[in-house]
Amino acid sequence: MTVEVGDCNGPFLCLALTASNGQGIPALDNYTGVYRPEIHFSPPQHFMNDPNGLHRDAVGTYHLYYQYNPTGLVAGNQHWGHATSQDLYHWENQPIALYPPTADSQVFSGSAVIDANNTSGFFPNQTNGVVAIYTLNTPTSQVQEIAYSYDGGYTFMRYAGNPVIDVNSTQFRDPKVIWHEQTQRWVMVVAHAQEFVIAFYTSPDLKAWTHVSDFSHQGLLGMQWECPNLVRMPVRDTTTGALTTDQDMYILAISINPGAPLGGSATQYFPGTFDGTTFTAVDGAARLTDFAEDNYAGQFFYGISDDEDPISIAWASNWQYTQQVPTAQEGWRSAMSLPRRNFLTNVPRTGWVLASLPYDLSPVLGRVLFKTEWQTEQATSHTTIPADIRAFYVNVTVSGLPASISADASLDIVFSTAHSQESLACGYFFGGDNGFFLDRGGTHGFRNPFFTNSFSTSVLPREDGVWTMTAVVDRSIIEVFLNGGVASATSTFFSTQTLTSVSVSTTGMPSGTTTEWEVRALENTWRGNSSI
Amino acid sequence: MTVEVGDCNGPFLCLALTASNGQGIPALDNYTGVYRPEIHFSPPQHFMNDPNGLHRDAVGTYHLYYQYNPTGLVAGNQHWGHATSQDLYHWENQPIALYPPTADSQVFSGSAVIDANNTSGFFPNQTNGVVAIYTLNTPTSQVQEIAYSYDGGYTFMRYAGNPVIDVNSTQFRDPKVIWHEQTQRWVMVVAHAQEFVIAFYTSPDLKAWTHVSDFSHQGLLGMQWECPNLVRMPVRDTTTGALTTDQDMYILAISINPGAPLGGSATQYFPGTFDGTTFTAVDGAARLTDFAEDNYAGQFFYGISDDEDPISIAWASNWQYTQQVPTAQEGWRSAMSLPRRNFLTNVPRTGWVLASLPYDLSPVLGRVLFKTEWQTEQATSHTTIPADIRAFYVNVTVSGLPASISADASLDIVFSTAHSQESLACGYFFGGDNGFFLDRGGTHGFRNPFFTNSFSTSVLPREDGVWTMTAVVDRSIIEVFLNGGVASATSTFFSTQTLTSVSVSTTGMPSGTTTEWEVRALENTWRGNSSI
Repeated sequence: MTVEVGDCNGPFLCLALTASNGQGIPALDNYTGVYRPEIHFSPPQHFMNDPNGLHRDAVGTYHLYYQYNPTGLVAGNQHWGHATSQDLYHWENQPIALYPPTADSQVFSGSAVIDANNTSGFFPNQTNGVVAIYTLNTPTSQVQEIAYSYDGGYTFMRYAGNPVIDVNSTQFRDPKVIWHEQTQRWVMVVAHAQEFVIAFYTSPDLKAWTHVSDFSHQGLLGMQWECPNLVRMPVRDTTTGALTTDQDMYILAISINPGAPLGGSATQYFPGTFDGTTFTAVDGAARLTDFAEDNYAGQFFYGISDDEDPISIAWASNWQYTQQVPTAQEGWRSAMSLPRRNFLTNVPRTGWVLASLPYDLSPVLGRVLFKTEWQTEQATSHTTIPADIRAFYVNVTVSGLPASISADASLDIVFSTAHSQESLACGYFFGGDNGFFLDRGGTHGFRNPFFTNSFSTSVLPREDGVWTMTAVVDRSIIEVFLNGGVASATSTFFSTQTLTSVSVSTTGMPSGTTTEWEVRALENTWRGNSSI
Repeated sequence: MTVEVGDCNGPFLCLALTASNGQGIPALDNYTGVYRPEIHFSPPQHFMNDPNGLHRDAVGTYHLYYQYNPTGLVAGNQHWGHATSQDLYHWENQPIALYPPTADSQVFSGSAVIDANNTSGFFPNQTNGVVAIYTLNTPTSQVQEIAYSYDGGYTFMRYAGNPVIDVNSTQFRDPKVIWHEQTQRWVMVVAHAQEFVIAFYTSPDLKAWTHVSDFSHQGLLGMQWECPNLVRMPVRDTTTGALTTDQDMYILAISINPGAPLGGSATQYFPGTFDGTTFTAVDGAARLTDFAEDNYAGQFFYGISDDEDPISIAWASNWQYTQQVPTAQEGWRSAMSLPRRNFLTNVPRTGWVLASLPYDLSPVLGRVLFKTEWQTEQATSHTTIPADIRAFYVNVTVSGLPASISADASLDIVFSTAHSQESLACGYFFGGDNGFFLDRGGTHGFRNPFFTNSFSTSVLPREDGVWTMTAVVDRSIIEVFLNGGVASATSTFFSTQTLTSVSVSTTGMPSGTTTEWEVRALENTWRGNSSI
């Protein structure tokens, strides 16, 4: 079905325009620019922000929708862009899924569910019906609406009974809905952004919603709360990764913007329990998902079973500078984080932590480019990445660490290019305050006073004397995971030349330790992709 | 009375050595180095960290003690250094006040009170007796001890009944004591650092302490909690500064290190109420005292009446790099923050805020060096600071701001030197996310991956259409105060040449606004000081 933009004023949300009219699928792009990530999702062109409607459908296809301005390189004119994937790395761009119904409204962030049991009544003849729950923003209000899809999430019909929630507010947004098995109800978390309140609603049918509880004024406030997520979380042993039995835990994640401590945008989370109406945090502590500043509005996929670790994708940018970054010269702005699998764990000294790791990288993990190890106190080694590889994976493992370590024992990793003297650096001190830093200040493609040069955290070596760092370096995004994901950072960087040299050095290492590192190629997921 | 270092093993704490033996008063220094602050306190030489024992005595003299290594330029060998002042700006260095009693112990942080009513029994014949309450650190324990001074805080006797609190812990420190008038008892807050617990104790006599409550796992945890402060706080109207009646509020401040969000060290606070035994926070929110990363372990002065705003001084550094900063080439490391007066206020959108402003600067505020104003949308002006002035005060006021402002309207302030092309910059965007940044990345004296280049926050213009920024630029420290102190930053910077040029520019200002700014000289408080 094809409709014209001019039809977008009726009771139904305009359907995605098909390719035949030349507007439905965003213009092709070659995904080859120096800043274009090769395994991270980025829009074909124009401006993207929050991931929306994440779900895995009845046939196993992952759907990623996203806040999208199809007509500009800055935020505005919000639609839901759409892409699909079989493995969360190779994405196929799809026609825009949700259009604003009027010229002065926008389709803001929200979520999607599969209504397999037809609780909504929209799907009498199918089990793969998709319902999107989103905020309609107008000059005078923000209300929650729903739209339903007969074709598995490619095109949507706007519900005639919208809005489904209207509390007469202009700052009420970002509904995220899950199915709560025990109570056999849908549960929505939605933000009263400027009141620092996450409202909990329940519904039998996705249409009639009852306000059941609020979570407010906990952790960091900043100036707005956005994009809440409530998700069941397995609890795993930090070292072995094994499930810790008998703990039925949830997390409530809340994104903060502006006013996060590192500047602009950040996401905090609260571990706790949920009884179907009320979320109870384990304590009053504020915990951040990331120690850099490009991880916002993360959303967890609907449709992941309780036997699997929850999967999330976040927006890898920051409102402080996202509309100024130099990727505009390539016709696009913003990428998503890697897909990540998540679990709760308990770390000595730190306590509860939401750990996250890249979701199974095997579909993109290429050949081993370099691999070495040493037992000496001081050593350095480096390798040059072949010219045809522009995204790579680095894994560093230090083992045999004693319980007490000199504050001077350290490891440095530098990614650089001789062509422009640019570099990106990480480092860790095994003793003292156990500081780890990530420094993007040696890249030259972008200068902005809000674009902070370096980030850090403190992480103890594991109790078994092992310390690990995994990094994915993908053109203009680096993601770093320490000790199996108990600390992580997502950071954009803008090197005008591709970083092709990797070096690892150690100094003052205790005797008995082994340092190993390897580099593997990551395959360009856009090369030969039928959607581009 | 003079004792030798060799005597330091008895039941009494070694007294401060007098000047006559050539060791008691730290070696003289000229306070003239390029990095030496002129109105901020810094030690005569060697390494300083936390302020300790802050109090105003019976004759109005302010006492500042501090964690001090009298033999090195890095942390260690902790004593209590000592300085006194009549105005909180002109300081006189005094002999070291507290020495460790044994070679393997250290006098860690703590506080001091005036026992005017002789509750302790130490002072039968005087009303100006001072009791210091501190942590004695040994290889096997951290216990709370007291020492008493007959001479108003210059020399101390170690109490024979020490320790006064011993809970068999190696991570239990930083006692801060206040007098609670309603219950006529002393109240101590002290940190179980690695358990994220602030323990509350009460005592009738400073010797016998009863554990009455705990405050734990609220706000940010990091990897340790240190240096708690409990202090009664007036509540003032943000715009007028007038007292808001009928609110008897306290704050509980807790310093975090390592693991603060910006890296390393930071201080959070909780507004709330205190009934003599239990502190109850207004909510579960984490609030930071500062949006940069050089404000730690702040302490509030004892002896300030309820009719005055509480006065505090913090350590203006960060454990991530304090032992590497280049001031070592001048023979010293670390300075204190400006003395500040503090109050609670309620800011639209943000809610409760601990506001802080420089304590009465009149003793150091010199002549007006430059003053200008404009009503135009776009303008720039700059001035050069005279060569004899190396610390200065800048006040910027923008008034007549409308309620809605374009995101492009901005103001930039740059402090620079033509000699070395170094600069320090601030800027504010009046609309959009109302971001303010402070960028020290243009200075060349220090490179360290943990020494973050820039910091930011979001602050709305005041409801009366005014926005203000006050900055004190003092050789190697800048302190910035926005809108009457509702946001503030304390930042070290290391410019190899003195910053002598100040420029202010505006762009895209709404019509009807007035931009005014002035620069005033700050007088070198060490010039002619009898203690140097």
